[in-house]
Amino acid sequence: MGAGLVGSLLSLYLAQRGHEVTIYERRADLRKAGSVEGRSINLALSDRGWRALEGVGIGEEIRRVGIPMYRRVMHDQQGQLSFQPYGQDNQAIYSVSRAGLNRTLLDLAEQNPRIQLRFNEQCLGIDLRANHLELRDTLTGAQHTVPFQQLFGTDGAFSAVRGAMQRTDRFNYSQSYLEYGYKELTIEAGPGGEWPLEKNALHIWPRGQYLMIALPNLDGSFNCTLFFPYEGAHSFAALQTAAQVQAFFEEIFPDALPLMPDLREEFFQNPVGSLVTVRCFPWAFDDNVLLLGDASHAIVPFYGQGMNAGFEDCTVLNELLEHHGNDWSTVFEQFQRQRKPDADAMAELALYNFEEMRDRVADPRFLLQKKIESKIAAQYPGQWLSLYSQVTFSHIPYAEAWANGQRQEQIMRRLMPHIQAEADFAKPAVQTLIRNELAQQERQPPSEG
Amino acid sequence: MGAGLVGSLLSLYLAQRGHEVTIYERRADLRKAGSVEGRSINLALSDRGWRALEGVGIGEEIRRVGIPMYRRVMHDQQGQLSFQPYGQDNQAIYSVSRAGLNRTLLDLAEQNPRIQLRFNEQCLGIDLRANHLELRDTLTGAQHTVPFQQLFGTDGAFSAVRGAMQRTDRFNYSQSYLEYGYKELTIEAGPGGEWPLEKNALHIWPRGQYLMIALPNLDGSFNCTLFFPYEGAHSFAALQTAAQVQAFFEEIFPDALPLMPDLREEFFQNPVGSLVTVRCFPWAFDDNVLLLGDASHAIVPFYGQGMNAGFEDCTVLNELLEHHGNDWSTVFEQFQRQRKPDADAMAELALYNFEEMRDRVADPRFLLQKKIESKIAAQYPGQWLSLYSQVTFSHIPYAEAWANGQRQEQIMRRLMPHIQAEADFAKPAVQTLIRNELAQQERQPPSEG
Repeated sequence: MGAGLVGSLLSLYLAQRGHEVTIYERRADLRKAGSVEGRSINLALSDRGWRALEGVGIGEEIRRVGIPMYRRVMHDQQGQLSFQPYGQDNQAIYSVSRAGLNRTLLDLAEQNPRIQLRFNEQCLGIDLRANHLELRDTLTGAQHTVPFQQLFGTDGAFSAVRGAMQRTDRFNYSQSYLEYGYKELTIEAGPGGEWPLEKNALHIWPRGQYLMIALPNLDGSFNCTLFFPYEGAHSFAALQTAAQVQAFFEEIFPDALPLMPDLREEFFQNPVGSLVTVRCFPWAFDDNVLLLGDASHAIVPFYGQGMNAGFEDCTVLNELLEHHGNDWSTVFEQFQRQRKPDADAMAELALYNFEEMRDRVADPRFLLQKKIESKIAAQYPGQWLSLYSQVTFSHIPYAEAWANGQRQEQIMRRLMPHIQAEADFAKPAVQTLIRNELAQQERQPPSEG
Repeated sequence: MGAGLVGSLLSLYLAQRGHEVTIYERRADLRKAGSVEGRSINLALSDRGWRALEGVGIGEEIRRVGIPMYRRVMHDQQGQLSFQPYGQDNQAIYSVSRAGLNRTLLDLAEQNPRIQLRFNEQCLGIDLRANHLELRDTLTGAQHTVPFQQLFGTDGAFSAVRGAMQRTDRFNYSQSYLEYGYKELTIEAGPGGEWPLEKNALHIWPRGQYLMIALPNLDGSFNCTLFFPYEGAHSFAALQTAAQVQAFFEEIFPDALPLMPDLREEFFQNPVGSLVTVRCFPWAFDDNVLLLGDASHAIVPFYGQGMNAGFEDCTVLNELLEHHGNDWSTVFEQFQRQRKPDADAMAELALYNFEEMRDRVADPRFLLQKKIESKIAAQYPGQWLSLYSQVTFSHIPYAEAWANGQRQEQIMRRLMPHIQAEADFAKPAVQTLIRNELAQQERQPPSEG
């Protein structure tokens, strides 16, 4: 149930293993003209996502239409820039179009003889005993029932499949909203399709309690997202007129404003989206139903890991099917036991990174710390990988990455009082401190946390 | 919506203020023969509940059919007893029949010309914009729509009203289950209707990871509840045969077993109930809808405060209506702002008391600490009220009680290493310590925590 990014990718994995798959999707086929874009326009693909796409052979095809972003570019209120690389050398996260990626996955699914696509089919309910899915054709209003052997709920943060499971006894569930919403805006392409800001970067306007970001598109434009409080002095509620919006952007985002000619129209036409974290357990009902992606672990977007985590679900499930064959009961049970702690850690990481992006990246001490960490990583390969790199450029389970990152943060808190500038890194006293910390860490194996 | 304890009491408060009230209830009228008892059989009424009942003039009537319980009686595995008074002198919590109390409240509602009762009406949904309630007559299956001015959701932990609110944007919600279930069992009355255990007490069989409790009935019997893991070595899953149940009770509850002649039948006939904590916010939708009682804050039963907290909701709402008249928007907003922190604190307290009842009350050091606290309270009236007394015998807001209790616990942790027996309390060194701690506390006003 659900032909979004995770559902369509999962269908390819299941078909690859010889299974017959029918995908039901509430919305119209997004490849057809006139279909409405539901969610954010750009996504940041990173290593976990790539691995999952490569597993069905489409990594290269997607990479050709993605734009690598090698660093964060921070814009301060005077338009001054500062920079933070994401990783080493050529490491990058990739700006890709959500709709474009979904279209590619649906095209592949459609070409596969084992996969059937059924759009405009709303899930009304599930009979978990009889293994029946109750559907409504949204075009005719007709209701019908279809049997299933295994049902995969890949129908997103507001999953109808999860809704049915929530009515079973002892289903733990929470949905928790930030007091912030988001609005999507546009920085236009320059003359001749030039990118008016550095193309291969993710741009951030950190403002303490809120922020704006921008990701590049292939046509020279950038998609901006303003993450902003619903209420308060600086908030969506406080910006009610075009003049207020204009004055606010002039003061707060002065270097972006000239690049946003449609700002005042877009601001009042585009909706405010809400930011939810969904946690639940169990994810499986016997050997009949399994939730994946946002349906079981919707997170806020600040680590760029929502899609990557959902795609990694497909990788993990595929590995378990490789190992246990069609023993669905074992596969579903192991999947949820293994994956739930990682989903919980990723939810925490995403909330943590909101503070980093809106506030800490504007602090020179924070940027200095990141430079020092990068030097430690270069000097001690295999002993130090930054938290960001573990999450973004590795396949270390999220829970382990988060534990490692917290331990590293403790080390940096002890180290940074001795460092006032980048050059201090080379001082013998600092080098000794680092050596001792790493020796200490060696004695505590990384997976212990 | 909902004619349970909170809904029927609330209708009396609203009618008392001159409002016309119609109560819709999904179930049949529980006063009619053959209706099924849904939930636990006994409840423990304490001061918050009494105040709410007195506000509609039925405190005395209910007190006449309640059984005061002055202390906890702990039964160890050898049948040895120990004791812990609940409060000072005549302070008691009262064992009352849930069904009996609900019947009395419904009789009063029915006699009130401003209140209409409608049973067998299931809430299918709510149109929050049009102020319409969609109902289904469960006897005929016919659906109909009724308009409302204000809708009060008093339909319990699995509230349909809350279900409708959960589908609005930015509704925070969680349901969280313990890995424990409960099963109700019976200790029979002795010959001639005698109580086979001390009548005016709440009996506890604390066993570390689980426990059984018993509350007295008017007919000489006791209702027992076994709180027990679903899975594991000692669990519902492990007791599959009558012989296993018999052997388990012989070993673990040897003094109770001879008083439970129907144990083996009851154990397999009575269902296992689950134990959920529900948290949500907001509780109000504009000036149209308000959730009260378990619908907004279902808690586990270990502090005996579920009904008392729901009844206190009625007291608090009534005070706000007294102050703001029919400015529903202000009343609903202030109600949820004031009451939410208290509901959250009570949920924590209820989970905390599970550990106390199943484990700590079996520890002589814990009982000694409670005796010492009682001596401090007697010596310094107005400066020390035990956490249990604050929750049970006062109207101090739950959040404040919980903060006070945590501060007191810190004091006791510093004090108890100096105390090996009750008599040590009188030692000059101990007296000085206590005086200093209380002087320190005086300088930190109690509401600070």
